[in-house]
Amino acid sequence: MSVSFVDVPKGSDFPLQNLPYGVFSTQSNPGKRLCVAIGNNVLDLSGVAHLYPAQVQEVEMHLPADIGDYTDFYSSIHHATNVGIMFRGKENALMPNWRHIPVGYHGRASSVVVSGTPIRRPLGQTLPVDGQPPVFGACKLFDFELEMAFFVGGPGNKLGERVPVEEAWKNVFGFTIMNDWSARDIQKWEYIPLGPFTAKNLGTTISPWIIPVEALEPFIVNNYAQDPQVLPYLKHDKSFNFDINLLVSLKPEHAEETLICKSNYKYLYWTAMQQIAHHTVTGCNIRPGDLMASGTISGETEDSFGSMLELSWRGTKPVQLNGNLTRKFIEDGDEIIIRGYCERNGLRIGFGECRGKVLPAIPFKK
Amino acid sequence: MSVSFVDVPKGSDFPLQNLPYGVFSTQSNPGKRLCVAIGNNVLDLSGVAHLYPAQVQEVEMHLPADIGDYTDFYSSIHHATNVGIMFRGKENALMPNWRHIPVGYHGRASSVVVSGTPIRRPLGQTLPVDGQPPVFGACKLFDFELEMAFFVGGPGNKLGERVPVEEAWKNVFGFTIMNDWSARDIQKWEYIPLGPFTAKNLGTTISPWIIPVEALEPFIVNNYAQDPQVLPYLKHDKSFNFDINLLVSLKPEHAEETLICKSNYKYLYWTAMQQIAHHTVTGCNIRPGDLMASGTISGETEDSFGSMLELSWRGTKPVQLNGNLTRKFIEDGDEIIIRGYCERNGLRIGFGECRGKVLPAIPFKK
Repeated sequence: MSVSFVDVPKGSDFPLQNLPYGVFSTQSNPGKRLCVAIGNNVLDLSGVAHLYPAQVQEVEMHLPADIGDYTDFYSSIHHATNVGIMFRGKENALMPNWRHIPVGYHGRASSVVVSGTPIRRPLGQTLPVDGQPPVFGACKLFDFELEMAFFVGGPGNKLGERVPVEEAWKNVFGFTIMNDWSARDIQKWEYIPLGPFTAKNLGTTISPWIIPVEALEPFIVNNYAQDPQVLPYLKHDKSFNFDINLLVSLKPEHAEETLICKSNYKYLYWTAMQQIAHHTVTGCNIRPGDLMASGTISGETEDSFGSMLELSWRGTKPVQLNGNLTRKFIEDGDEIIIRGYCERNGLRIGFGECRGKVLPAIPFKK
Repeated sequence: MSVSFVDVPKGSDFPLQNLPYGVFSTQSNPGKRLCVAIGNNVLDLSGVAHLYPAQVQEVEMHLPADIGDYTDFYSSIHHATNVGIMFRGKENALMPNWRHIPVGYHGRASSVVVSGTPIRRPLGQTLPVDGQPPVFGACKLFDFELEMAFFVGGPGNKLGERVPVEEAWKNVFGFTIMNDWSARDIQKWEYIPLGPFTAKNLGTTISPWIIPVEALEPFIVNNYAQDPQVLPYLKHDKSFNFDINLLVSLKPEHAEETLICKSNYKYLYWTAMQQIAHHTVTGCNIRPGDLMASGTISGETEDSFGSMLELSWRGTKPVQLNGNLTRKFIEDGDEIIIRGYCERNGLRIGFGECRGKVLPAIPFKK
């Protein structure tokens, strides 16, 4: 056990082996500043004299970095397969490119927000009946997506140059938990042929702490076995997969929370190193502060699916909550809370929480 | 005619009625600073005492704003129809959502560069033969896309709130010319189901001048007639379409340039006001400095198509160049130069140039 003048409660996300980075302010000093968490305290890095209790009202956490660009991958084979089965049937579940490319797309950086920020149910355009005109109104199939994301560190690369896959780990600074809120009905109508747009840019929540990769080294596990072999520009020997437990709870407005999903980062098919090598293969420059997300992380079993879409199997199997409640998708007032931690031989490295409550849609007025 | 102590040559892009914004530096003073162009001169706004000749070696232009997020729309009906015919046949040319939604997607802000920046032919993954494994190598179908883009101005909106369509003009600060370089063979293999990614993030060139919307008011024309009627959140009365001539030239390395496309901004089906209203409909916040592009602007006639893909009809009709040269797609050493101007009753408002030369691919070394 490490000894420190700061008391670290047993089971804390933030022991001395973690030291995650964040940005905070206080009511008495509203200027945003860098900090690290130790147990329930926040160490102000701007003047290492101050130590604030992190669990009290006074400390407000902010986005831990200025995000230049935000990219979202689609790297869980179980998630991609589930979605494929639902929309295209079992035979064509995975797209032909999926095992060759760490498929991803550019997301919206402006709407990435820190844990605790309420999320408004969106209005938007949907096509309830094929062949009929589209309609406008509040999203009916509002969903979360359990993801993790890393912040890019290191020097980045110049436009026109690649980051070779074996060196890509140098650009992974640290990880956060992410909820990629998704409007399924809006997405379905808009996404062909250029991908998700307004269904995703309504808000993306991340936890306030960046856990440095160094703190995760004791929890490295084998990379997911890839078949067929990937092209050489994606091949690396280094193990860069992590055993990180991920838990999703849903808390209705006037009821207790229910654990609805137990997943793990290690189910990802593609590594962060492969994601970076692919992202830069055509010469795209990445910069410190860029955020790269995993895509929904689902495991093999039904209790490890990382979205309501999969947990309720497109609404056909309602999810049972405490207090005799059920959900097919997210209702107004529901709060989604994602937590993550690594644990081995008495060492626990936690990620804190990523939470967001869904507010009712604003009625349309032209 | 306006009279000024600065001499404005006849036919200049930048008369006193234009006053476009840009960012420049000089060798003797490398700090980047705001300027406006008047004729062939650059007025340093940081100390209104200095006036620099803009056409000489000494002045270097930079990106005219810090781009927070970059969005690319797909708003030309002729372009969308051409691409649809080539890939899906005449009957299903336009996707069912196209006339209801100003389709768009999030692009990569980090790789937007200013006119004059060389562009490297990308390496990447393609699928030359269906059913066979993908291959890795230099892009074979490298293309330009003639676009225009506007910078967002005004206060922006808060996350969770919309910009009503009738007010959206307040968020359009001014326009630039854009070349959205595209790797067609890479795009074809990667884009399902999440849209273009590495095929587009290799570089996007914009002209260095932002032409304020106020300078374009004399050139406002009727909005494109939309059929069927759009949903109320996209309906506006204000005319917000512009008669802007757009010219694309291709200059092989050791030959003179050839004009290969004559198009016009006015061919766009969707207005910038509709683009903003749709972009924010689910609550996405937009910020000053965000860049929103039109998508490839093609007209009805073959000489107005805004990409090599369309001009050579997927490589089946080589484009004739001066000096007995031909092109199906862009070759190494080729420079693409896009120019734009409005002209009426002796008043000419120009956009300057958007140019970029294609360098050969860097050979692959793992």
